[in-house]
Amino acid sequence: MSPSSSTSESSDTPDLGGLGEFGLIARVTRDRPPSASTLLGPGDDAAVVAQPDGRVVACVDVLVEGVHFRLDWSRPEDVGRKVVAANLADVAAMGAAPTGLLVGLVAPADTPVATLEGLADGMWAEAQVVGVGLVGGDVAAGPALMISVTALGTLEGREAVLRSGARPGDQVAVCGRLGWAAAGLAVLTRGFRSPGTVVGAHRAPEPPYAAGPAAALAGATAMIDVSDGLLADLGHVAEASGVGISLERKAFEVPERLVEVGAALGVDPMEWVLTGGEDHALAATFPAGAALPEGFTPIGLVVEGSGVTVDGEEYAGGGGWEHFTPSQHSGGTLAP
Amino acid sequence: MSPSSSTSESSDTPDLGGLGEFGLIARVTRDRPPSASTLLGPGDDAAVVAQPDGRVVACVDVLVEGVHFRLDWSRPEDVGRKVVAANLADVAAMGAAPTGLLVGLVAPADTPVATLEGLADGMWAEAQVVGVGLVGGDVAAGPALMISVTALGTLEGREAVLRSGARPGDQVAVCGRLGWAAAGLAVLTRGFRSPGTVVGAHRAPEPPYAAGPAAALAGATAMIDVSDGLLADLGHVAEASGVGISLERKAFEVPERLVEVGAALGVDPMEWVLTGGEDHALAATFPAGAALPEGFTPIGLVVEGSGVTVDGEEYAGGGGWEHFTPSQHSGGTLAP
Repeated sequence: MSPSSSTSESSDTPDLGGLGEFGLIARVTRDRPPSASTLLGPGDDAAVVAQPDGRVVACVDVLVEGVHFRLDWSRPEDVGRKVVAANLADVAAMGAAPTGLLVGLVAPADTPVATLEGLADGMWAEAQVVGVGLVGGDVAAGPALMISVTALGTLEGREAVLRSGARPGDQVAVCGRLGWAAAGLAVLTRGFRSPGTVVGAHRAPEPPYAAGPAAALAGATAMIDVSDGLLADLGHVAEASGVGISLERKAFEVPERLVEVGAALGVDPMEWVLTGGEDHALAATFPAGAALPEGFTPIGLVVEGSGVTVDGEEYAGGGGWEHFTPSQHSGGTLAP
Repeated sequence: MSPSSSTSESSDTPDLGGLGEFGLIARVTRDRPPSASTLLGPGDDAAVVAQPDGRVVACVDVLVEGVHFRLDWSRPEDVGRKVVAANLADVAAMGAAPTGLLVGLVAPADTPVATLEGLADGMWAEAQVVGVGLVGGDVAAGPALMISVTALGTLEGREAVLRSGARPGDQVAVCGRLGWAAAGLAVLTRGFRSPGTVVGAHRAPEPPYAAGPAAALAGATAMIDVSDGLLADLGHVAEASGVGISLERKAFEVPERLVEVGAALGVDPMEWVLTGGEDHALAATFPAGAALPEGFTPIGLVVEGSGVTVDGEEYAGGGGWEHFTPSQHSGGTLAP
């Protein structure tokens, strides 16, 4: 549609303004692997995805450059993986398996095409971890890089595992990493780039996707994805269920690497474990006596009452991230 | 979560920074009407929507302040209606009926809460036109107001109507308004605020949603939502189908109101009819001899060849909008 479309590919450093909307879409959708659940992929007014049990699980996550990620701290591939991972973890937290992804992308016209290809590569790579496709999307010009991802999933005939089902006496358990992404962000915030394990955890989490359906099959009564921090997210479960949650500090084995990083930065690593978001662990409650699925570690009990305690006391540290509150924007750090 | 959350509601002119993320979500999801297809609405990690035939139709649309809308030209309610309408029209263009909507919202912290409530009211109002709900979403801080809407839909057991099914000999027909939104934008761009009918058409389109499934039932071979302009969008059908499309100028009855506005602004109103997007009419092709569903007007024929002609010639006017191309950003106008 634009005279520049035909010439941009020969430019040395093509940007989005040169490639154009349709050129970009063609580039980032070309030669991608097929997915069994994608009945109709990108290119029409809408996509069609198989939802065999007659229901679709759906959620959306938005990432904004400078707020959720910095391209001097993360490669575009990492950002693409991260936004998809955050969303797939939400699907897993319902006890569901993903079936497809859609992307809404806003980018300035001077965004290098390589950045957008990297983003798309990262999104496709994370989608491939669970065998789904990017089935559709929309691209628009705007003042900053913003990525909105919608994930679709299937409950495979099961009931959804809600936040509201925890009952006094239930076991509380967690699967996946806690505190690694927060430690990585603390390292980056102070100007360091290593150790790579924690920095990598901030850049692209590795949620335990399969643990979501496994927890549902094991009878989980409630489940949540840890995106804002374990205490904050278990607080959501406690509130939705009308219960209290009592955690035991000794149930948490703080990984050696977090102990080392904490010592180097003068931070109690337990703070990262209890309040750091973005690793997208799954926290769930199970009936007393139920065998926990592989990968889940017991960390406490559901009790009568309200709120979340650690060793019987309210934890003195932070309570998770909330967008738009002034206290969140004074530290020069990033949102989960 | 923030100390300011509890006090913000008493402020005279509350903004998002005062209300906070969770406060906003509570405000805009409170007391909304139920929808039959919403099995689980906002408040958990993901929503659950009924998709009775075992498939979901899904698409996403993004609107950016200053690019797609201006809040001095449109009320927040109009913008909310518009982004939902654009997306529901995509669902209709597959021959599907909508089942639910999800919203990803990015907004600066100083955005007035009233603006966001207006946006939400508009989105809910348009959703109510088709009887669905806003089932989930995400809200984040960012440098500009950006709204990403995902629409879900059901084919009700039918095959999807693709862009690629048009065959030589098919009738080409359109249902819904053409050129009204473009005339409204032309009026606003020149500093006027009336006539209200065309300005209103720019602010909030009224797509013929029910015509999508009706066209599918009537045997439509291809269909598209007119978002970029009739010629551009029929061009997509022609390309996807490997055919040409031959339109007849005399088949279009230019509405009196567009003739008047065109005369006042010195514009041939046929330009708006043929190249103006955003009214979200549905353009479809039907087998020769098939009875057109109510509301569809025949405008031409599918032919061997390629491209779209008007009275046998390539139309000299513009060919629709493409994001990021330099020519689109010199006129101080808005993207569809």
